[in-house]
Amino acid sequence: MVIILKAKTTQAEVIKLTTELEAKGVIVSPVIGTELMILGLVGDTSRIDPLQIEANNIVEKVMHVQEPFKKANRLFHPENTIVDVCGQKIGGKKIAIIAGPCSVESEDQITLIANEVKKLGAGFLRGGAFKPRTSPYSFQGLEHDGLELLKKARAKSGLPIVTEIMSPYDVELFAKDVDIIQVGARNMQNFDLLKELGKINKPILLKRGLSATIEELLMSAEYIMAGGNENVILCERGIRTFETYTRNTLDLSAIPAIKKLSHLPVVVDPSHATGKRFMIDPLSKAAIAVGADGLIIEVHNDPEKALCDGPQSIKPDQFGKLFKDLKAIAEAVGREM
Amino acid sequence: MVIILKAKTTQAEVIKLTTELEAKGVIVSPVIGTELMILGLVGDTSRIDPLQIEANNIVEKVMHVQEPFKKANRLFHPENTIVDVCGQKIGGKKIAIIAGPCSVESEDQITLIANEVKKLGAGFLRGGAFKPRTSPYSFQGLEHDGLELLKKARAKSGLPIVTEIMSPYDVELFAKDVDIIQVGARNMQNFDLLKELGKINKPILLKRGLSATIEELLMSAEYIMAGGNENVILCERGIRTFETYTRNTLDLSAIPAIKKLSHLPVVVDPSHATGKRFMIDPLSKAAIAVGADGLIIEVHNDPEKALCDGPQSIKPDQFGKLFKDLKAIAEAVGREM
Amino acid sequence: MVIILKAKTTQAEVIKLTTELEAKGVIVSPVIGTELMILGLVGDTSRIDPLQIEANNIVEKVMHVQEPFKKANRLFHPENTIVDVCGQKIGGKKIAIIAGPCSVESEDQITLIANEVKKLGAGFLRGGAFKPRTSPYSFQGLEHDGLELLKKARAKSGLPIVTEIMSPYDVELFAKDVDIIQVGARNMQNFDLLKELGKINKPILLKRGLSATIEELLMSAEYIMAGGNENVILCERGIRTFETYTRNTLDLSAIPAIKKLSHLPVVVDPSHATGKRFMIDPLSKAAIAVGADGLIIEVHNDPEKALCDGPQSIKPDQFGKLFKDLKAIAEAVGREM
Amino acid sequence: MVIILKAKTTQAEVIKLTTELEAKGVIVSPVIGTELMILGLVGDTSRIDPLQIEANNIVEKVMHVQEPFKKANRLFHPENTIVDVCGQKIGGKKIAIIAGPCSVESEDQITLIANEVKKLGAGFLRGGAFKPRTSPYSFQGLEHDGLELLKKARAKSGLPIVTEIMSPYDVELFAKDVDIIQVGARNMQNFDLLKELGKINKPILLKRGLSATIEELLMSAEYIMAGGNENVILCERGIRTFETYTRNTLDLSAIPAIKKLSHLPVVVDPSHATGKRFMIDPLSKAAIAVGADGLIIEVHNDPEKALCDGPQSIKPDQFGKLFKDLKAIAEAVGREM
Repeated sequence: MVIILKAKTTQAEVIKLTTELEAKGVIVSPVIGTELMILGLVGDTSRIDPLQIEANNIVEKVMHVQEPFKKANRLFHPENTIVDVCGQKIGGKKIAIIAGPCSVESEDQITLIANEVKKLGAGFLRGGAFKPRTSPYSFQGLEHDGLELLKKARAKSGLPIVTEIMSPYDVELFAKDVDIIQVGARNMQNFDLLKELGKINKPILLKRGLSATIEELLMSAEYIMAGGNENVILCERGIRTFETYTRNTLDLSAIPAIKKLSHLPVVVDPSHATGKRFMIDPLSKAAIAVGADGLIIEVHNDPEKALCDGPQSIKPDQFGKLFKDLKAIAEAVGREM
Repeated sequence: MVIILKAKTTQAEVIKLTTELEAKGVIVSPVIGTELMILGLVGDTSRIDPLQIEANNIVEKVMHVQEPFKKANRLFHPENTIVDVCGQKIGGKKIAIIAGPCSVESEDQITLIANEVKKLGAGFLRGGAFKPRTSPYSFQGLEHDGLELLKKARAKSGLPIVTEIMSPYDVELFAKDVDIIQVGARNMQNFDLLKELGKINKPILLKRGLSATIEELLMSAEYIMAGGNENVILCERGIRTFETYTRNTLDLSAIPAIKKLSHLPVVVDPSHATGKRFMIDPLSKAAIAVGADGLIIEVHNDPEKALCDGPQSIKPDQFGKLFKDLKAIAEAVGREM
Repeated sequence: MVIILKAKTTQAEVIKLTTELEAKGVIVSPVIGTELMILGLVGDTSRIDPLQIEANNIVEKVMHVQEPFKKANRLFHPENTIVDVCGQKIGGKKIAIIAGPCSVESEDQITLIANEVKKLGAGFLRGGAFKPRTSPYSFQGLEHDGLELLKKARAKSGLPIVTEIMSPYDVELFAKDVDIIQVGARNMQNFDLLKELGKINKPILLKRGLSATIEELLMSAEYIMAGGNENVILCERGIRTFETYTRNTLDLSAIPAIKKLSHLPVVVDPSHATGKRFMIDPLSKAAIAVGADGLIIEVHNDPEKALCDGPQSIKPDQFGKLFKDLKAIAEAVGREM
Repeated sequence: MVIILKAKTTQAEVIKLTTELEAKGVIVSPVIGTELMILGLVGDTSRIDPLQIEANNIVEKVMHVQEPFKKANRLFHPENTIVDVCGQKIGGKKIAIIAGPCSVESEDQITLIANEVKKLGAGFLRGGAFKPRTSPYSFQGLEHDGLELLKKARAKSGLPIVTEIMSPYDVELFAKDVDIIQVGARNMQNFDLLKELGKINKPILLKRGLSATIEELLMSAEYIMAGGNENVILCERGIRTFETYTRNTLDLSAIPAIKKLSHLPVVVDPSHATGKRFMIDPLSKAAIAVGADGLIIEVHNDPEKALCDGPQSIKPDQFGKLFKDLKAIAEAVGREM
């Protein structure tokens, strides 16, 4: 941590602050210039809150030097984390493909799609039972009934299921019934939910919030990991920018950034990022090329009748073609499908 | 609702879509040009999901014409809503001033500040008991103990208390103990929490999310109101932009926008928006000048020792001076303090 | 300047870098911890390019400590700059009001509006002769003819004229004919134009770019000032964010920020920021309350027939009422109209 | 074009507006509901300025239906444009690789790099002679001398040269000496410069502005094309968002968007987008996978000594390895290197 002091700070003030800081167990090295006074802090600065230092009247600015996350930090865990989901691995050489509809709509629908995407190469089934909708008047998902239908589709297709949790009330149930528990973008900083998920052992798919920095995403992963659950899979799904042509802006540079900063696996959701069917194909290819560990893609047998997110859903035959095309890209970057 | 069709749509396709739409109870008026086909929909379009229409292959774009919120809409409720909090009004002629520390730290601290800000003009006491912190290693608030201390400070000062809720588990408790229940920016789209808050009667202070549009803020208010609780107070607290000098960018144009679109009262939080003590004074004045119904300001007796958000807290004497200065501004825009 | 070195840097590498840096005339103080090595640089760091340091393989990050602008910096010029325009002052106690149409359209139009706004209180006349339009097919302004009409309106009304320059070719002409030369948001980093404007003596109204940080705005002012022209007036006119209800997001916190960082006067343009007529009134009041030195407002006698920006133009009678209302606000913050 | 009228508009007002619009040569079809009145406009709406309509008091909103660009529009030019640069094609099956240093620094430097990148596969040489720098105190490029050195490097390596223009004064010179004239992000809406470039025939590399929408980028291309120069190559180089880990956020979804909307070729600049050397490799691969027609990459023989942008420059050996790795990606998407 580096503390920049204001120009007219007196020596007495510097000594006072230094003493306070050293009482917290760090070593303070001052750098004193004519127009500039810097305090360099070495040692364990994790117990020092930068905002508390910044509240001091003699302090101009406090600069972080080390990342504030630990368990998620590659520095302390150099090898990649590989998450095991019912025997399948996410984060290893093999690309994980999660496919399925935005919402579970009926037994026929989810079972049909599950069987189709399984046959065409998908390794995991996605489907929303509890849906976070901007409008209270929109379809909110089949909720617990949807979860039951997902379990039936899992039984028939053999695919592990991925679905979103919205309430801490459901953690116990999801821990029992779901294979990967998804935390949606809107709940990335629902810290109460994250804490509950830290207490269980199920893999968590943590989506980046619409305006969350990469560091904040990793801090939210840290919440889950600090609680004891280290099975965290990150997901880039587009950030909010000024551009309105796409629903959000898919930030593919986040993938190499996360890979450098953290050991956790990271997947990409091109469907929610763009909101446009014709973009799924090129952006899925780009996601694999940039180094993502997997994709989560919306597939629907009849997008025009989908109860939600139809414009961004592709049909099973398009999914099948994409899956095949991705093989060459995966191979080109040393991965396999 | 206006539906733009793709250029090469056939007449048969137009008829098919028109029939489907009219089955949902709207009247469809086609506008057919050589390079352009538009369907204008009149009647109750609230049961038609634009994304479902957009999923149709012949549809280029769907455009909203009416706002998607109803209970929050000024169109259907032209007069201002005035929320009653223990006999004090928010949304009327009098500006509501909510003041207090970021966090409740001790009985002495919260009682001292409560008495100070009461004496200097504040009408409500704020103080965080449950704190949403980016880092799991930061101080998380005194939680239930903090709530008890707030109640003591209320008893001593007579000020109604405003504090943030983070979990649906706490709704019953907050409904009993708290005068205004705050929903923080990170939870603005925690729809499960909003639904629970719709079932009670206590005033809700709903903060705009960091990347929420004004429409999304109003849709979140709609969630609470649709459940039956119409005591919603909105709060502009800064949005996330590319500018890094301030913590966030306070969007004061949101105030006249909300006033035009909705009848709900709206207050401004200059402390969280800017993160900088010296900005509280000018932005509080601007907020009143632009038409806000109130302010929520962080005041701490010893900001350098504050357990959180010290850099943006002002001292009681600064608060007192600001309160006095605001009188002339309030008067200039036909309000009173 | 503070240089953070990578964890595994050897002592030999530290010495090599230190020697190189000291050869540039600064003193380097190292702070060496187990997981952290920092070099604090004191002395004149203005000749050291941070990006050049950052390119070094042993460097993790370079952090600025001092602002990179000098002539625009309040640190070296504590008192406010007051710009003199034909005897009127901008940046002093009196609020400067610049009013007029988006475009000069005809002699009648500009003369009529000039006389009206003069009568109602404006101190300066704005009007576009050269118009930066997103589309090549939109009206591009009357160009040199427009400039002649502005001069006629000045002669008749006595108001100094403010108009936008788009090409370095026109600098000489504008220096002769125009009283305040406006640099539009799109040209804020047209450095060739800025350099030319640094060579003359006319006041420059420099608008903040749509995605320019406050620091970048001040660096663009620095370009003009470094050339020798210190008559720079800054203008906040909205930044581009995700919010689409308003055309841009007016960043009023930029005003106290600029006032703290710089001694230059700063005015606010609520018309371009919002694009909406009904917002001019509240945001003008907020701008004065927050500490702006003036306003630039679009006024048109017949907005529905305006050749550009009609939706954000107010009529003379609305301008007159606003001017009166602003007096109380100005007084409340120790200014006058 | 679709015009939404306000709720209480009278029939007489509708007729008045309709008549005015029809006088401009369009056909107006009204859609009248109880709470909604829409005018659908068919015919040539290019002469109708939406903002002028929106200024009308009875108008709620005006919605575009057709893209405002024509010459750049794929609708009117379905096949891809292929730009010929000294016999090499950009926009065809072969991926164009433009490589070289940020700045031309000396004859040795530019010639050495030119020969290296040529040998390793590059088809074009980039190098800045006129540099747009945020600070007036930073190195501004070798200017005309730099241009002469580029010509020497071209003579020795045989690579066509790409360099940035900053002033309309230099258009004639660049048209004679340069093979692809680059318009930088900061000048994307320097319309005077664009107009001058529309009068010549040289290929123009037009970079997307930091906060420009895809539509605005295409409108700037339209400026050049409307003037008669249809040799426009677009360039995505990152947009400004709230994320600070990367210098900008590379918007790879812009590539399929541009390919759908326009027939112009589009290349990607991963160096400026990210500002980080380690990201060039993965993002170059992603750019080819997503469908870009080429890359523009900063290569420097000694990045630590580079006069600008060292942290984002890669060395020739890294460039050589990347070039080889890109072959498999290009092949996977039906392209060649």
